[in-house]
Formats: sequence, structure tokens, C-alpha cells
Amino acid sequence: MIAGMVRELATAACVAARGLAVAPSDLKNLALAAMADALWSSRAEMLSANALDLADAKSARCATAFLDRLALDESRIEKMVAGVRQVAGLPDPVGEISGMWRRPNGLLIGRMRVPLGVIGIIYEARPGVTADTAALCLKSGNAVILKGGREAIRSNRVIASLLAEAAAANGLPKGSVAFIDSVDREAVTHLVGLTGLVDLIIPRGGEELVRTVQRTSTIPVLAHEKGLCHTYVDEGADLAMAEAVAFNAKVERPGVCNAMESLLVHERVASAFLPAMIQQLHEAGVEVRGCSRTQALVPGVVAANETDWDTEYLDLILSVKVVGSFEEAVAHIAEHGSGLAEAIVTADHGRAMRFLREVDAGAVFVNASTRFTDGGEFGMGAEMGISTQKLHARGPVGLTELTCQKFIVLGEGQVRDSNK
Amino acid sequence: MIAGMVRELATAACVAARGLAVAPSDLKNLALAAMADALWSSRAEMLSANALDLADAKSARCATAFLDRLALDESRIEKMVAGVRQVAGLPDPVGEISGMWRRPNGLLIGRMRVPLGVIGIIYEARPGVTADTAALCLKSGNAVILKGGREAIRSNRVIASLLAEAAAANGLPKGSVAFIDSVDREAVTHLVGLTGLVDLIIPRGGEELVRTVQRTSTIPVLAHEKGLCHTYVDEGADLAMAEAVAFNAKVERPGVCNAMESLLVHERVASAFLPAMIQQLHEAGVEVRGCSRTQALVPGVVAANETDWDTEYLDLILSVKVVGSFEEAVAHIAEHGSGLAEAIVTADHGRAMRFLREVDAGAVFVNASTRFTDGGEFGMGAEMGISTQKLHARGPVGLTELTCQKFIVLGEGQVRDSNK
Repeated sequence: MIAGMVRELATAACVAARGLAVAPSDLKNLALAAMADALWSSRAEMLSANALDLADAKSARCATAFLDRLALDESRIEKMVAGVRQVAGLPDPVGEISGMWRRPNGLLIGRMRVPLGVIGIIYEARPGVTADTAALCLKSGNAVILKGGREAIRSNRVIASLLAEAAAANGLPKGSVAFIDSVDREAVTHLVGLTGLVDLIIPRGGEELVRTVQRTSTIPVLAHEKGLCHTYVDEGADLAMAEAVAFNAKVERPGVCNAMESLLVHERVASAFLPAMIQQLHEAGVEVRGCSRTQALVPGVVAANETDWDTEYLDLILSVKVVGSFEEAVAHIAEHGSGLAEAIVTADHGRAMRFLREVDAGAVFVNASTRFTDGGEFGMGAEMGISTQKLHARGPVGLTELTCQKFIVLGEGQVRDSNK
Repeated sequence: MIAGMVRELATAACVAARGLAVAPSDLKNLALAAMADALWSSRAEMLSANALDLADAKSARCATAFLDRLALDESRIEKMVAGVRQVAGLPDPVGEISGMWRRPNGLLIGRMRVPLGVIGIIYEARPGVTADTAALCLKSGNAVILKGGREAIRSNRVIASLLAEAAAANGLPKGSVAFIDSVDREAVTHLVGLTGLVDLIIPRGGEELVRTVQRTSTIPVLAHEKGLCHTYVDEGADLAMAEAVAFNAKVERPGVCNAMESLLVHERVASAFLPAMIQQLHEAGVEVRGCSRTQALVPGVVAANETDWDTEYLDLILSVKVVGSFEEAVAHIAEHGSGLAEAIVTADHGRAMRFLREVDAGAVFVNASTRFTDGGEFGMGAEMGISTQKLHARGPVGLTELTCQKFIVLGEGQVRDSNK
């Protein structure tokens, strides 16, 4: 039964996607504005649904952090609404033509950006994800199928139905915003098996959710795995700058994927840099786990073991390693980095350029904090998450990344002669 | 044992890929030239190996078309060598920076094109694929793992070892060109399971090979499924142009994916267009299967049944349908097309633009033959095949499509303040 329901939603979304793909930007923007209005004017309904979700989650003794993600209040709804309006204001990527070269036979060939089609989003506690992912999908001309966490089902039901109604009432195809109204775990299994109906699956949530979706989906997945980010302080770096950048990368918000987990320091600056740096980190409550050379330079550093170099702490813990060369730093990052974001602090132009070229990650930074790895900070507007994959999209996933490019060819009756 | 061998090759390819990613264009081009030279000067060795493969295939009573794909001769080797030289002459996509915008905080943000890493190619009879795919992978900075068909094992062994030796002797990392020297079917199963070591799998061959790889691979796959291409002759089209374009699309080389399989004709031009068109097709030996309206207009047309609209004939057979409107044509293509290439012949600018926007395929043509769907014809140089997927790359897959873009960020010590 659940299989049939999911397939039915996806089939309708497929039809809706065809209409959405050619919907003018103005129409999409007006619909998004109406969706934002609908959310705001029905905030009381949203809050009562959320209160019931919260009460159940509390009875089920969910963790405090989980309850916090699940909870809505007027200010969070305000942010949700502002997010939808912001997406309405972003440039529409659909229809953009890049290139357009002329072949000797007169054919004009270029690439046109078009929507992917139907995007399935699988997420966990935060009800706000319902609104911002739906807005991003619609703006980029895609239909969306939403599957939220069971604990947020009442909140999501209200949000999704407000969005779907406002979208349809304002000229977007019916079925553009589909919501899987079920807490059955099987729903996900069915959704990720709908090859030919769904074009992309985006899991937004913890590592376990992402792995499960990656393992079971027969549809392409755009996934954010983990973030194990390094900052490398190069020989000759401005040490005050290095201290500010590294401190920010570790401490400003340690629980997120673009926070630094590992600090690499060139041996020629280690003794000038590490004592003050680590003192500052200690004062901020950071537990520092260092290699033997770090321990020799600074008291109070815990010994790092081999697993530390591969650990995403998401906490006020930092591993520190003194390296003998730029090459050793790059090799360490290649071995232990997760491909999300990596930074160098350097005064040397050649090594800055080498770092950009040689370090393989979604975002590579020179003299700036990895914490900037974010669609908003990059100026791309809202984001769908950060891709740690190589195919299709790396780094922050915005509107453009929810589209693809097809070739367009303009002729005047040209035919091919293979024997020419 | 075979599992260990494949993993060992992939591990070495991973290390090689790091070196290849930063290899200068000149070095790659010189190595490719040396690889071309090596192939040409050892053509006698290649031909004797191929003669043994051919003799076995004949004993095994392989089909004539298969034997033709397997066979090498001096002129085919000349083409293979010229292909490698052509790839050497193409622009290097690696390191290209696009964008580079400035944020209010002074950060400069752009995208840099980088190799994917390690690419696994699984192919069938044609030994020439060994050389051209290896050349494309190396030029785009990727290491390659080659797994050819069992019937071509001796030919491929010679070609791959010539390529690998010439590459290594000319400064490319050892292990850049890996060849799975085994006819064990298990080799493919192991290769497509090496997540974390291999970044992309490209199956080049028949539908069965592609499906098997898609079903079993845990690594992203870039695949060419089938080509069911339409040509739609619009109301008011230049009928002489339509006849030339449609005839070329069907007849010039019917056995390939970008040949037309289905012709759609607007009812207002059907009676003026179809009789002469179908007569010409009949004279060229094409079996025409038409809808009832087509049958009413032209004698000798076989009745098309529902499966015809979904059949890729790859042969001198064509299905023909009279449609009542532009919209009906677009809807028919959406339902039956395979997303490879679609064409309209029209004199109307508005409908030309609508066709470009509304038809979803890797390549969409106005007034030109779908047979142009080809990397070489598009001016992209050699190609790796044609992607019928939406993610990462659609249409002809050239050097650019074997790379991805990472973000690069240049700062002067910027740090993030989330509370701002």
C-alpha cells in the first residue's frame, strides 16, 4: 500500500515536472512569495502541530539536541519564511545558455541549463528543511518529493500542505510539492527504488541516514558524507593571521561539518606558533591532541593516536601535527581529509597556488577559515547542503547544482556525411 | 586472487592519479605523442596478437559483426594512433578557473576544474577503445583501469602494455594505465565494488553490459543507455529540408544510437510530405511502420503497433506517426524518447525556441540531423561515448566531462562570524 502511494506521488510529480521545467521565472517567484505568505499566516496551525510532535518526542525521551532541532517558534518560522522569499529573489538558473560555438558546417552548438526533473529529499528532525528544500527545488524547475523524519510528521504535514496548496493556487502544476505522509520506514526504500520516475535523491541528515540511502538507492544520490577539515600553517605564514583563522575554524561553531578537526603546522614555525595558539585554544575549552613534537613544545597536550587523524570530532577537540614540509602536509590531507574543505595559511604565492591545485576537496582555501564553506557565504543564496562527491556537484549545492546542461544545436538543414 | 589483483591495480592507480592531477599539459602531451609512436612502431606485434584473438573468435563462431569490431588492420591502427595524437592536441581542461567573484568581505571565490581521479572503463570487442579511452583519461589527468572483452584479450594486452610503458617512460606516474589482464568475469564485479579507490565507472558496450554495470556498481556510473531519436516535421516546415534531414537521420548509418527511429509529422503537412518521403525511404530499403493516418496516405506502409514507438531498431526500419499539434509531438517525445537526441524541422522561430526548451534530451536539434550527436561533430575532439543520464554529464562525453569543478577561495585572513 505504501509502495503504491509513493509510486503514485512520484508519477504525479513526473507530470508536474514537465510543466515546472517550462514555467516562467515570474510565475515561480510569485508562487514562492505566496508560499511564504501561506506559511506565515498559518503559523499558529504550524505551532500547534509542532507542539504535538514535541510532546511525543519528549515522551519518547529524545535527546535535547534532537528536541531543539525539532522545535519551531515564531522566530524560527520567520526565518523559514524569509528563506523562501530569499530563494524567490535568486536568479533563475533555468534556460541559461552557455557557449554557443559555430562549427565549420554552420551548426551553432551550445549548452542550455535545464531542471533535473523530480528530486526526492530524505531528511530528519528539522521541519524547516521542508520549506527550504521545496523552495530550492521549485525555483530550479524541479518537482520535489519530501520524506521527513517520523518525529516531525505533524509539523511537516502542515508545512508541506501549505506549500503544495499555495503552489497549485498560484499556477504551478499540481503535484509539484509531494509529501510522503507516512512514518513507515518502507517509504524510503520504495522512494529510492523509483528509477525512471525520480531523478535525484538527496539525503539530508546524519551519517547513518546518508549511508543507508547510498547503499540502497538505485537512483543517483547527491550526498554530504563527513567533514574532516584541515588548516595547514605554512613556513613563513603571518602567525597572527594563522592564529585568527585556525581559532575561528575550530571554535566559532565546532559542531558543524566545515569546522576544523586537524591543524598541521610546518616545523619551522611550530615553536613560534603552537604555544600561543594552543594556549588560546585551551582557554576556549578545546582539548588538544597532538603528535609527539607538539607535546614537546606545549604542556597540557594529550597524545594523539592514529585514529585521531581520521576522526571528525564535531566538538571542542582538535588534533595537531607538526609536519616537515609543505609536501608532507598535502600528503597528510590527501590521506586523512574527507574532501569537504581544506585551508592553507601562507605568505608564499607559489605554495598558495600549489595548494589550490594539489589539494582535492570541494572547497580549497588560502588564508581564510574553512567555516566559510557554505552556499550563503559563497554568495550562492540558500543551499541544499554540501556535496562531498566528485560527480555532478562538489561543495555547496545551490540552485545551479539542482540543474543540468543539455546540448542545443541550431541548424539550417545540415546533414551528416560520415564518409567525408 | 582476481579480487586482490584488481584491488592492487586500483590502489596503484590511486597513487598515480595524485601525480597525474598535477602533471603539466606539456608532459601529458609529450607522453601521449610517445604512446602514439609506440603503438605505430609495434603494429606488427599488435596485428599478430589480434590474429590469434580473431582465430579464436572464429572458432567460437562469433557473429560477423562481432568479428568486424574485433579485427585490426594497418588502417585501423593508423586511425587509433591518429586518435591518440588528436587527444594530445586538444586543450587541457585541468586547472581552468571559471567565475572568481568577490564577496563583500573581500573573499575571492571561483571554480577550478580538476580530474575525477581513477576511471574504470569496461568495454567489449573493439581493441581501439583501449587506446582512445586511455588517451582521454590521461589527458584529463585521470588514471585509467581498462577491462576489455575476453575475446580481445591478446590485442588489448599488447596495446595496454605499449601505452603503459610509453606513459611511464615519458614521465607520467607508474600505474597511470592499468590493464586487468584476465578473462574472469569476476574481475568486473570486483572493479565496480571498489568505492573509495575508483571514482567513476564507464561501461562502453551493449545494453546488457550497461545494465549489469549499473545494477552492480557501488561507484558512480556514466552510462549510455539506448538511443531512441525522433525527428518532428512541423507545420510550415521547409519540406525539402525536412526530407533531407530525416533521410540522413535514418539512412546514413542506421545501426548507431543517434540515428532516427521515429518520424513525427504535423497533420497539416502530412499529405504533402509523407508520400515522397516514404517513397525515398522505401527506395533506400527502409521498412516503414506507420500509424493509421500514415497508412491511409501512403501505400506499402506496415501498421505500427504500440511497441514500435518504444523500439530502437538500429536498422533500416522507421516508425512514422502523424500528430495533431506541436504539443502532441513534444508529449510523444517525452513519453517515448530515450533522452539521447531529438530534432525538429521548422520554419517557425517561436516553436524552434519552445522545442529547445521543452524537449528533454542530451542534445536537442533545430533543422539538423540527429546524426550530428557526436563529440567530434560537436567540436569537442574525441569522445568517450554519449551520456543519456542527467547527472554530471549529458550528451557527448569529452575531456571536460571527465573532470569536475572544486571551489577555490582566496582570502587575506578572513574569519566567519555566524552571529553577524
